[in-house]
Amino acid sequence: MLSHFKIVLVETSHPGNIGGVARAMKNMGMSNLCLVNPKIFPSADATSRASGASDLLNSVEICPSLQNAIADCQLVLGASARDRTISWPELTARECAEKFVTAEQSKNKIALVFGRENSGLKNHELDICHYLLHIPCNPKFSSLNLATAVQVVCYELFVASGQKAESTIGDKNEIVLANAQQMELFYQHMQQTLLDIDFLHPEKSVSIMRRLRRIYNRISLDTKELDILRGILRFSQNHNNK
Amino acid sequence: MLSHFKIVLVETSHPGNIGGVARAMKNMGMSNLCLVNPKIFPSADATSRASGASDLLNSVEICPSLQNAIADCQLVLGASARDRTISWPELTARECAEKFVTAEQSKNKIALVFGRENSGLKNHELDICHYLLHIPCNPKFSSLNLATAVQVVCYELFVASGQKAESTIGDKNEIVLANAQQMELFYQHMQQTLLDIDFLHPEKSVSIMRRLRRIYNRISLDTKELDILRGILRFSQNHNNK
Repeated sequence: MLSHFKIVLVETSHPGNIGGVARAMKNMGMSNLCLVNPKIFPSADATSRASGASDLLNSVEICPSLQNAIADCQLVLGASARDRTISWPELTARECAEKFVTAEQSKNKIALVFGRENSGLKNHELDICHYLLHIPCNPKFSSLNLATAVQVVCYELFVASGQKAESTIGDKNEIVLANAQQMELFYQHMQQTLLDIDFLHPEKSVSIMRRLRRIYNRISLDTKELDILRGILRFSQNHNNK
Repeated sequence: MLSHFKIVLVETSHPGNIGGVARAMKNMGMSNLCLVNPKIFPSADATSRASGASDLLNSVEICPSLQNAIADCQLVLGASARDRTISWPELTARECAEKFVTAEQSKNKIALVFGRENSGLKNHELDICHYLLHIPCNPKFSSLNLATAVQVVCYELFVASGQKAESTIGDKNEIVLANAQQMELFYQHMQQTLLDIDFLHPEKSVSIMRRLRRIYNRISLDTKELDILRGILRFSQNHNNK
């Protein structure tokens, strides 16, 4: 029921936390762990803190970049403390579980991304995310330990999966959401088109493209819709070249 | 709201876990920590893992026995893996939060008791408890790390206490969503642009425009975002006319 979720840890500093995460995941019946550029791994500390979940460490996926880690995922949620000046579509851990632990969503691959222990995820990493994932907590002391944050999120997924296990849902509409790689190609195509029609100036493109990503990331486009939007971009470019 | 709860740790072996518990508690706005006969305390490991929650360690209550620790409590809940051989009134972490995080219950003092890392609570300790407290988890790997177990329970209390900031997309930033009339003008503008770039054929435009409406209606665009998208349409049209 939870095999469509992947926990992605970005540039974790302390290998003990990686072990703690593996244990927390296995406690909640989850197994797909991906490490982006871990500082130290493998490590005796990781194995010791995993305490019986070393099978997850043995089958871990290691990637050189976040883009790489989420290439096969249709949905990407980035864990983040609240209180950002940017408004971004946000889900609490419980809302995330209610929304994505369903038979329908299980056809999608969903990445839950956790950033560095001290500094979290960077802006360009959040840009890739469809939602921010937020754990309600004391606003005056809001930095959770990495393993306990993963524990809370996986716990919510597990509880939701138990509640939904009974209700067998027939899925009639075979909607396939676009994955991160397809979305990335779409954004590249969009950027090129906007340069072609002189809407974007190369030196100013970053902040506009960030806003546009924020818009389109929150729709969860399916592949047919993406085809239509890319068709529009193609026609814009071709017309432009006439 | 949560000051009537006390977390009691019985004979904890690893001081790092005590620090982890302090941090987990403070993350969830809780502060009453009681240690029954800890193996090693105080300790640099505890302080380091507390990471900003050392105030809880400084004000910790240390007791020689569980009886002593719970003497001032009206209710005692003992964390325990599910054991079907003992029939005991049992609450999940969420049920516990729903039942005891109320104004009425806040007149009682409630102890949440967590046992040893390896062997949990002994039978004579469970005998003192009014309820067993259970965290739903993978039955094949059900031993949670002490700090993550406390994290989950305190998180449930925090969520129930309603202290969670509402997860709305940002009333703080004064975001104004586009109204229906603005969206309608946007769709008319889009349709004209798509005709201009020959993407749409007048006789086939209905079904494509319907799909596009379905896409953009589900984004809940704010007015600034709408301005950007209309800007793109304008540039598409102008470029086309050059």
